[in-house]
Amino acid sequence: MIRLGIAQVNTIVGDFKGNANKIALNLETAEKYDLDILVFPELTICGYPPEDLLLKKHFIEANIEALYTLAKKITSKTVIIGFVDHDEKGHLYNACAVICNHKIIGVYRKMFLPNYAVFDEKRYFEAGQENIIFSKDRQSLFALSICEDIWVKNGPYVEQAKSGAQILINISASPYYAGKNRERKAMLCAHAIETQAFICFANLIGGQDELVFDGSSCIISPKGKIIAQAKSFTEDFIAADLNIQFQQANKKQITCKKINLPHCAQIDITKIHLPLKNNFAPKDLSLVQEIYQALVLGTKDYAAKNGFSKAVIGISGGIDSALTAIIAVDALGADNVVGVSLPSQYSCSETKLDAEILCKNLGIQFIRIPIQNIFTAYLSVLKDIFKQMPVDTTEENLQARIRGNILMALSNKFSWLVLATGNKSELSVGYCTLYGDMAGGFAVIKDVPKTLVYKLAAFRNQQQSNELIPQSIIKRPPSAELKNNQKDTDTLPDYSILDAILKAYIEENQKVSALQKSQGFKEEIMRKVIPLVDKNEYKRRQSPPGIRITPKAFGKDRRMPITHKFIE
Amino acid sequence: MIRLGIAQVNTIVGDFKGNANKIALNLETAEKYDLDILVFPELTICGYPPEDLLLKKHFIEANIEALYTLAKKITSKTVIIGFVDHDEKGHLYNACAVICNHKIIGVYRKMFLPNYAVFDEKRYFEAGQENIIFSKDRQSLFALSICEDIWVKNGPYVEQAKSGAQILINISASPYYAGKNRERKAMLCAHAIETQAFICFANLIGGQDELVFDGSSCIISPKGKIIAQAKSFTEDFIAADLNIQFQQANKKQITCKKINLPHCAQIDITKIHLPLKNNFAPKDLSLVQEIYQALVLGTKDYAAKNGFSKAVIGISGGIDSALTAIIAVDALGADNVVGVSLPSQYSCSETKLDAEILCKNLGIQFIRIPIQNIFTAYLSVLKDIFKQMPVDTTEENLQARIRGNILMALSNKFSWLVLATGNKSELSVGYCTLYGDMAGGFAVIKDVPKTLVYKLAAFRNQQQSNELIPQSIIKRPPSAELKNNQKDTDTLPDYSILDAILKAYIEENQKVSALQKSQGFKEEIMRKVIPLVDKNEYKRRQSPPGIRITPKAFGKDRRMPITHKFIE
Repeated sequence: MIRLGIAQVNTIVGDFKGNANKIALNLETAEKYDLDILVFPELTICGYPPEDLLLKKHFIEANIEALYTLAKKITSKTVIIGFVDHDEKGHLYNACAVICNHKIIGVYRKMFLPNYAVFDEKRYFEAGQENIIFSKDRQSLFALSICEDIWVKNGPYVEQAKSGAQILINISASPYYAGKNRERKAMLCAHAIETQAFICFANLIGGQDELVFDGSSCIISPKGKIIAQAKSFTEDFIAADLNIQFQQANKKQITCKKINLPHCAQIDITKIHLPLKNNFAPKDLSLVQEIYQALVLGTKDYAAKNGFSKAVIGISGGIDSALTAIIAVDALGADNVVGVSLPSQYSCSETKLDAEILCKNLGIQFIRIPIQNIFTAYLSVLKDIFKQMPVDTTEENLQARIRGNILMALSNKFSWLVLATGNKSELSVGYCTLYGDMAGGFAVIKDVPKTLVYKLAAFRNQQQSNELIPQSIIKRPPSAELKNNQKDTDTLPDYSILDAILKAYIEENQKVSALQKSQGFKEEIMRKVIPLVDKNEYKRRQSPPGIRITPKAFGKDRRMPITHKFIE
Repeated sequence: MIRLGIAQVNTIVGDFKGNANKIALNLETAEKYDLDILVFPELTICGYPPEDLLLKKHFIEANIEALYTLAKKITSKTVIIGFVDHDEKGHLYNACAVICNHKIIGVYRKMFLPNYAVFDEKRYFEAGQENIIFSKDRQSLFALSICEDIWVKNGPYVEQAKSGAQILINISASPYYAGKNRERKAMLCAHAIETQAFICFANLIGGQDELVFDGSSCIISPKGKIIAQAKSFTEDFIAADLNIQFQQANKKQITCKKINLPHCAQIDITKIHLPLKNNFAPKDLSLVQEIYQALVLGTKDYAAKNGFSKAVIGISGGIDSALTAIIAVDALGADNVVGVSLPSQYSCSETKLDAEILCKNLGIQFIRIPIQNIFTAYLSVLKDIFKQMPVDTTEENLQARIRGNILMALSNKFSWLVLATGNKSELSVGYCTLYGDMAGGFAVIKDVPKTLVYKLAAFRNQQQSNELIPQSIIKRPPSAELKNNQKDTDTLPDYSILDAILKAYIEENQKVSALQKSQGFKEEIMRKVIPLVDKNEYKRRQSPPGIRITPKAFGKDRRMPITHKFIE
């Protein structure tokens, strides 16, 4: 019997002291439950992903020092934790240390380095070459892998299981997108059955710039049954007693491929086992529910980790700002969110009222600052230069940028974080104003297509008995209200069509002509929409960071040149 | 005797038609000079770097189609050109085709894929495994490599030379930073001597988003002498007659390591040689001169390739906007640049006058739009909310953002490209206003430290007999003029000190404590400056693209998390 636990922690990149404190707290819990083995996620020591901080030698040194400081504290328990390893040539490795009796008794180095999507691991790390296994009383017990290693077909875990490893421990920092947890669990359960071994999956939780890590760590039996499951989107601590069959292990070893065991160690595990509290087994979240929680966590952590306690949001009376405001309230608390209505001559009385009602419903501070006089002042100085020119989007953008300037002034004066409210659909086709509604420190729903905005709003409304987002906001046709009687559909197709086109073009890299055939989109619409996506890359390049919830967000995930002539 | 030429072309990413036309024109030139071999740069077919366009299957197909269309046109000449190759598994390769007699007779695949600094090649490409050599009349003649391959110690060129290759052809898209051409030439000449082979270095020229490719292609003799040298920062065509010693080659082959020659082909080269015109041998540029040319080319190409013919610049009467304006004039012509003075109550009469004189000196359109009334309108609506708070940077930023809004309005109305004027020193420490002076489509001098701004201004002034930048602009202590009697040095150390600290911290990743010791910077200054760099990452994340001229620019070159706690 092995008592194994996972500390699902929320680290901060480069916060060696803070992360060490968090590790220490979890070691106390492990003590309390008398665990044999405690597992922490990928790069727990330094936080994930450290990006170019890894190019600083003293960052690596600080990380090694933190690891040794930790090792000094560890006595009979076995602690497994992620850190950055280095060799004498100065090469770096995304690594996992096994600590016991004040010593680092073994180190596994990640073999498969993701370098696609949001990942740049080959920029920093060399691939590990050595597959190792840890034994107890001369019997193979567990082996390690790091994140990607366990996603790869015939990855190191296969050989590990063949060599008798009873527990396949994977430490991860697996970034969230909608549905990722389901995919991941299915993959892990299949691997457990395939290898006939326990799987221990220790995943990071927390927000880090554009990424959210959802946690959802778990321990899976050799039959593919989840025997312990951590919550998603929050710190957690889980443990299970694993009934290890050593006899079976030894039989296996006879048939197994010989592998290098240079770091192999005898783990002397204390044998006293107290009954564990039943682990809380969280229910699976619905897709909308998990996306909502990701957005809340991403917002909460961006604010907290960057030293903001309060946020300010321009409230238009539309659905996007309403959703952003609720997420902000759930992330920071109603006392820490300020809603600002910035009406112009084109704002109708209904949206102005709705903005106020929304803030009242949410219990947040409400400020109204009309922009009419400022707009007039701009038009006045531009009159001579613009005189022969017809009114166009210029005048619309002017208003949006006045709002951006006012929100930023409030931010500067009161140290409030401006949350931008644009959704993925608008950002895709550039139906937004650079430095206007795009202004802000963090763009909460920038990866949320408009059709999903409605679903999230409906979901959150249902959670509560009192009304949050007024129905009039949900039912009113979307409008930027930057000129008279403006509607989004004057310029764009219906969002249900637009979002389907955008998903195919942006997330799936489909060809325009193929899209026409397979999905039956009208050529006329395609010819209008697709070029907008490419033409507006320059705007997206200057947009604030925001939370990734799809398999392909803008930002590190989709690295398109601004300058190019390939629109197909 | 082999007559070898290099077509140093300026391609556009994804512009298959435009690039093909450019290739065709150069083939005509090759015809005229009766070349045996014509070499084009890396990824000439599709442009470089295509980034995530490479993830579109139909982009790869279009590139293959363009290569085959080209092959059809080529008869007796041998043409060597870069394209994206793929295999049956769908893996991509950064490749080089050898075309002769309407056929692709061989393909070399890049072996060393840069994945550091601005490069992401492992995101897209697999590494080539096969080193090949091309022979003529059964005698080894030339071999190929691609960019990075020739920078690597003991790269494929070593084996190629050992196997008898007389000409080592390297096709490149080697992005510029100050001094790169000197480094590169020294490396190439050393390789020529080491291998006793001719080196033919065909480099891309042109601007692509943040990168500038400087060209400077050359042909080097086995004695390490440059026998033909293309100009820097402009398209060019060079050629040389190479006196190939086949006897020697065969001797070499006897001692050489056996290598795979699956693509080896007999090249039947027409033997008629006419005397070549003497190649123009450009003088080496000074460092300041080459940086200036890089800035002009980067600006010119960003505008042209993105469909802008005119640019607009906020002219403050300071040195940064003055330098940006001159670069714009040199890039786009005086008729295509508009200078806008946007004075506030804090703008002194001298800077207002200087702004006007500068525009007059440059022969560009001058517009003056005072922002006082707009500023008053903002203060008026914010009065109630701000009432108990002291005046601070909020009011300064308001002014900068009014200017940003006006410049963007001019951009929107007249389709002018806004050129932002901030330098690297300010951007490093955040001494700039997001959406204010940072606003724009392209930030010309964002990688130019302030001390270098002065050098570039002085250099450009010297080039001309009439005065360009008035001496008063050069001599006046820098000021943002956003409050009374403001000077940059109220907030920042002297730029000579600041720039030295920033270079060590940003470009060299040095540790704060080491900097104090080695360079003797005062602790007090360090403690003030360094945290500013990290705290202002969020601003840089939203800054417009601009031209890289140092070995580490902001942007793809330096991928720092916004959220982190490591400041050392």
